[in-house]
Amino acid sequence: MSYKTELKKRSDEIEEILLAYAPKGQAPARLIKAMNYSLFAGGKRIRPVLLMETVRLFDGPVPLARPLAAAIEMIHTYSLIHDDLPAMDDDVLRRGKATNHVVFGEAMAILAGDGLLNCAMETMAAHIPYDDEVYLHGYLRAMSEIITAAGHNGMIGGQVLDILSEGGGPDKEALDYIHKHKTGALLTAPLRAGAMLSGAGKAQLQDISTYAAAVGHSFQLVDDLLDIEGEAGKVGKSIGKDAADGKLTYPFVYGIDATRQKIAQLYDSAVKSLRPFGEKGKFLKETADFLAKRDH
Amino acid sequence: MSYKTELKKRSDEIEEILLAYAPKGQAPARLIKAMNYSLFAGGKRIRPVLLMETVRLFDGPVPLARPLAAAIEMIHTYSLIHDDLPAMDDDVLRRGKATNHVVFGEAMAILAGDGLLNCAMETMAAHIPYDDEVYLHGYLRAMSEIITAAGHNGMIGGQVLDILSEGGGPDKEALDYIHKHKTGALLTAPLRAGAMLSGAGKAQLQDISTYAAAVGHSFQLVDDLLDIEGEAGKVGKSIGKDAADGKLTYPFVYGIDATRQKIAQLYDSAVKSLRPFGEKGKFLKETADFLAKRDH
Repeated sequence: MSYKTELKKRSDEIEEILLAYAPKGQAPARLIKAMNYSLFAGGKRIRPVLLMETVRLFDGPVPLARPLAAAIEMIHTYSLIHDDLPAMDDDVLRRGKATNHVVFGEAMAILAGDGLLNCAMETMAAHIPYDDEVYLHGYLRAMSEIITAAGHNGMIGGQVLDILSEGGGPDKEALDYIHKHKTGALLTAPLRAGAMLSGAGKAQLQDISTYAAAVGHSFQLVDDLLDIEGEAGKVGKSIGKDAADGKLTYPFVYGIDATRQKIAQLYDSAVKSLRPFGEKGKFLKETADFLAKRDH
Repeated sequence: MSYKTELKKRSDEIEEILLAYAPKGQAPARLIKAMNYSLFAGGKRIRPVLLMETVRLFDGPVPLARPLAAAIEMIHTYSLIHDDLPAMDDDVLRRGKATNHVVFGEAMAILAGDGLLNCAMETMAAHIPYDDEVYLHGYLRAMSEIITAAGHNGMIGGQVLDILSEGGGPDKEALDYIHKHKTGALLTAPLRAGAMLSGAGKAQLQDISTYAAAVGHSFQLVDDLLDIEGEAGKVGKSIGKDAADGKLTYPFVYGIDATRQKIAQLYDSAVKSLRPFGEKGKFLKETADFLAKRDH
């Protein structure tokens, strides 16, 4: 099976998982609609795909991974809704569609974002395997890992420094913090959470964490390049915004060539960390390659 | 000990708990500052006080109740920060102090709110008593109860209908939904969560839920009256905003006298539901009385 076919199969699985755990209930219909509008606005589903793959890599409990996978995509989606708000990045286009506040208004977009973050936690909590003696602790540790990655010492902290650094000079330390937290935390979490759920050993968790850090960092660098060289039609969001907003990006600090070299170097690091897994690490290796070469 | 002294002792306990679990870490200092600004901006701490009291009522594990108590106050605080945003209620004064976005700007207020909601979940997840055979399940159920109460089928759903109902006619059904969810959910949750953590039986959980529903509803009615008849200096927020915003409130639908009667009726219901607990329910009874008669 080609990588593209393989990836399609896996992202189809995520769509099915998201449908199963999507926000529903007696809540006002407009809120449910706003939450689901962004949750089903496309996207590569790379975070939940990585989580499911890691659980399979370690022969872990796939059914228990499903609510965790749904949760991580909900968290990612909420962060995009809030990032796009007028008070933040003020973006009108995301994944080729009008952003949440453009369609539903600012108040509803804030609440839909809050709702999705909360729903992520609810989904994980609602599926705690209370009586599973083998996997209960792993499930709870995976849940904690995801929550912590999303918080003030994770993604939110990165987002804050990203905003605070706008219009400033080329600060390498701040750039590193932003990359590790704003994007890195939520790309690392599914891999570590998948390993934790499956009861992976310390050395294995270390290997998968190295892979995760490399792929997470590379992901952001490619994003930065796409904002300079990408085509809006493919990328699905406004292009050239980083420079216009005075964002602290890798190309801004180190230049475009150095960014390309860094992406290649991170790819090597990712591949190397997968060696202990042999043939079983094939999909993750190809994913690192795919993410480094993507045009959207 | 007088009720006021008793309440002071208990809210002092909550301040100590909040200090212990307050957001900290390597996150950008301004984010931590914004989060703590609102978390320590005063407030009655009534939700965590109710949680700790319920755990004591049922002779439950007080140390395990602490992170849950901190979490519920963080959730309450985040909801106030987001409610006060220009896109929402556009309030400049809260608990007698400038609101979060007035001090830190709109982007930071959104992220500080997100951070506090996330921190609530992190705090609960970080203190899961993994190896406590007696209380692990109760702790997890209490955690789930709190999370669900905060979500789209709880508080957020109520907040959405509150906004959607602005400027509309006197809709009794919508009013009931708003009261049960916007305020009720997060006042009911600490009582139910406290009972669940402590392993309370079904009948006891039912009694405490009845008390919770009555007190939660009464709390909102008193809030509505204070917005009409209160003094801004005591209430600590702008007065007369509900009418100006065309909010759907109990006094708007039923009139002021009927609101007072309803508060008295809810107090009776609360007191009645505490009968099975005898003398041990004294503080909760006095709390219902205090909340019904408060001027802030």
